[in-house]
Amino acid sequence: MEYQILTSETLQTYIRRIKSLRDLVGNRSFKIREVGDGNLNYVFIVEGEHQGIIVKQSVPFLRCIGESWQLSKDRILFETAALKKFHDLVPSHVPAIYYADQQMCLVAMRYLDDHIILRKGLIASQKYPHFAEHVATFLANTLFKTSSFFLSSKEKSELESQFNTNCDLCKLSEDLVFTFPYMSHDSNHQFPGMEEFAAELRSDADFKRSVLSLKYRFMTQRDALLHGDLHTGSIMVNERDTYIIDPEFAFFGPFGFDIGALIANLLLSYVAHLICDSDKSYSVWLLDTLKEFLAKFQSRFLDLLRSQESNAVLIPGFFSRQDLERYHQEIVLKMVQEGYGFAGCKMARRILGLAGVADIRGIEDRNKRLAAEKMALGIAKDLIKNFEKINSCNDLLSRIPHDR
Amino acid sequence: MEYQILTSETLQTYIRRIKSLRDLVGNRSFKIREVGDGNLNYVFIVEGEHQGIIVKQSVPFLRCIGESWQLSKDRILFETAALKKFHDLVPSHVPAIYYADQQMCLVAMRYLDDHIILRKGLIASQKYPHFAEHVATFLANTLFKTSSFFLSSKEKSELESQFNTNCDLCKLSEDLVFTFPYMSHDSNHQFPGMEEFAAELRSDADFKRSVLSLKYRFMTQRDALLHGDLHTGSIMVNERDTYIIDPEFAFFGPFGFDIGALIANLLLSYVAHLICDSDKSYSVWLLDTLKEFLAKFQSRFLDLLRSQESNAVLIPGFFSRQDLERYHQEIVLKMVQEGYGFAGCKMARRILGLAGVADIRGIEDRNKRLAAEKMALGIAKDLIKNFEKINSCNDLLSRIPHDR
Repeated sequence: MEYQILTSETLQTYIRRIKSLRDLVGNRSFKIREVGDGNLNYVFIVEGEHQGIIVKQSVPFLRCIGESWQLSKDRILFETAALKKFHDLVPSHVPAIYYADQQMCLVAMRYLDDHIILRKGLIASQKYPHFAEHVATFLANTLFKTSSFFLSSKEKSELESQFNTNCDLCKLSEDLVFTFPYMSHDSNHQFPGMEEFAAELRSDADFKRSVLSLKYRFMTQRDALLHGDLHTGSIMVNERDTYIIDPEFAFFGPFGFDIGALIANLLLSYVAHLICDSDKSYSVWLLDTLKEFLAKFQSRFLDLLRSQESNAVLIPGFFSRQDLERYHQEIVLKMVQEGYGFAGCKMARRILGLAGVADIRGIEDRNKRLAAEKMALGIAKDLIKNFEKINSCNDLLSRIPHDR
Repeated sequence: MEYQILTSETLQTYIRRIKSLRDLVGNRSFKIREVGDGNLNYVFIVEGEHQGIIVKQSVPFLRCIGESWQLSKDRILFETAALKKFHDLVPSHVPAIYYADQQMCLVAMRYLDDHIILRKGLIASQKYPHFAEHVATFLANTLFKTSSFFLSSKEKSELESQFNTNCDLCKLSEDLVFTFPYMSHDSNHQFPGMEEFAAELRSDADFKRSVLSLKYRFMTQRDALLHGDLHTGSIMVNERDTYIIDPEFAFFGPFGFDIGALIANLLLSYVAHLICDSDKSYSVWLLDTLKEFLAKFQSRFLDLLRSQESNAVLIPGFFSRQDLERYHQEIVLKMVQEGYGFAGCKMARRILGLAGVADIRGIEDRNKRLAAEKMALGIAKDLIKNFEKINSCNDLLSRIPHDR
């Protein structure tokens, strides 16, 4: 079928034509509603007699801006390939794909009807006791098993070839995460009262050189296959499960980028709750969750490193056991430090740039919102300038305000 | 024509069949001799009535070892693609390609009949007054114009796609430059008398961690299209011209790798002459040449950076003029520092590993050869451990022995 942008009505017809989809939702009665609240794509929930599915279609522009901002619709192909790879690696935390149609730029996948977007849950002060562990498992496995510490150089370069032309979406990050927020640019967002702080940052050459060095890593360092946009809006949760969705920004990039996205979004939520809540119980839970995530991620990744005695980087006999262990520890430390740096960029862009986060922009009291924006930007600045000096999670937590 | 390994005889028949080749060397009388003295391929000189050509064919194994060490013959496709790209970028320093046959893994190119391999010239104490300038021009242009400072992210990823499956040859470097020489391995070469020094290095964990961090950059950092094997055997010279040949190791890698190969090979020649010559005139010329190369490379690369106001990394308005200049200076400094690190690995592998260089291995006096090996390895060790602290070429030269 030739590409056309689907509506709830035309999707009805489409599904009736495809046997595998019909089999899933039933031929007779299924209901379709469009629920895409993201920046990029159309998302439909198709509720059948026995089960529902999600159908996602990309359009050749940035949905939140409109047709004036063109964007390759092929991004769905990268998303599909990444979902498949991630599902293979960590099936318990990535939804299964049922069907994909390249020409229509469409993918049908499991409907997580019992789950909500993590960001919404965090805003509503919901606690997810297994989230830290699940996301640590997801990240340790996807980063390790697509890196040179697991794949042969040949396998890695073949996998890289599948993703290294996802340029349109990488360019979005290059511009919106690493460039425009730090200079005078039409796309930026400025909350009243932030002028002075923003101007100060934009004239801090050390800060901007550090941003640029992180941007350059993003553009050239091919450690592993990344999700590429792992904020709390790309994670579906309930009390039992955690699922990672929406990897359309997937590409081979630096280890720290996904780690940083997660840290940033937990910290943004933390700042909002610290400023707005009447007590600290939820903000403390958020920091505990961040700490648990970092600890478990590091220990999982270390275990995976230790389990792979021979890989493309290292072979038995190169190091003594003791030196090998030290080398492994250093790799994991640098990976997480890089994560702190990227977390800074991810936080700063949410305050200064085009796309904010509901956690902060949803604060109705103007004074509280201003305080939250300032606190978040202060943390971001520190992380960007000093990420390579932060030697532990406790060290990180000691640099973060614990009172309004 | 189906792939077969050519001999001087079968190449005769082959050339007679191909019009464009016949037109070059004449139909009637041309002489063919096989001259490949490299480690990998077969190289024929075809001397026609009016002009000669070079025909190079890859075989599905490592020539210097034999059929037991298999190696993809597709390496010639990467070599051809790289030669074309480099010739487009710097036509005065890369031979023109006349004809390429993918199936036969064969390429025909300009015969540089008036030039010799630079390594041979250096061993014979020949001076090349323009070499430093020429190779600086070659490297500044190829590195800059295949990097994110010149290409758009889309253009760069398309070019990357052409080269990032050159895995077999990258694997050779991973093993032979960055791994085997630093551990106990059958492929290593050990000159009598070097046992203690080699053993000391192989038990120096700091040294090996630094080697490994350079190896990891080699494997994952995609700054620019590299020649990949830019030693003095891959350069043809005479008093007027400099030509870069044999880029079969071409891949997207770290800026410093080609720079380092060149530095390493000039220093190996320097060490040999310092130890063996009765006076210092030639060894001083070698250091002057190294200094001139580094100065000219840096100033060319800086000029290119300054000329490209808007690129994938930086756009006008991000930095003040002063901060931009400082950023550019830092990029070039880091690039050259990385070059010192890679130079160390390239020198060490020539002493400890499988493939030596004639400059050192050709020293007949055993004591002098031992002195040269020790001096070269001492420089290598210092470069690998301290490359990030060397802030200028003078700084580099002050760390190098100036007497036997």
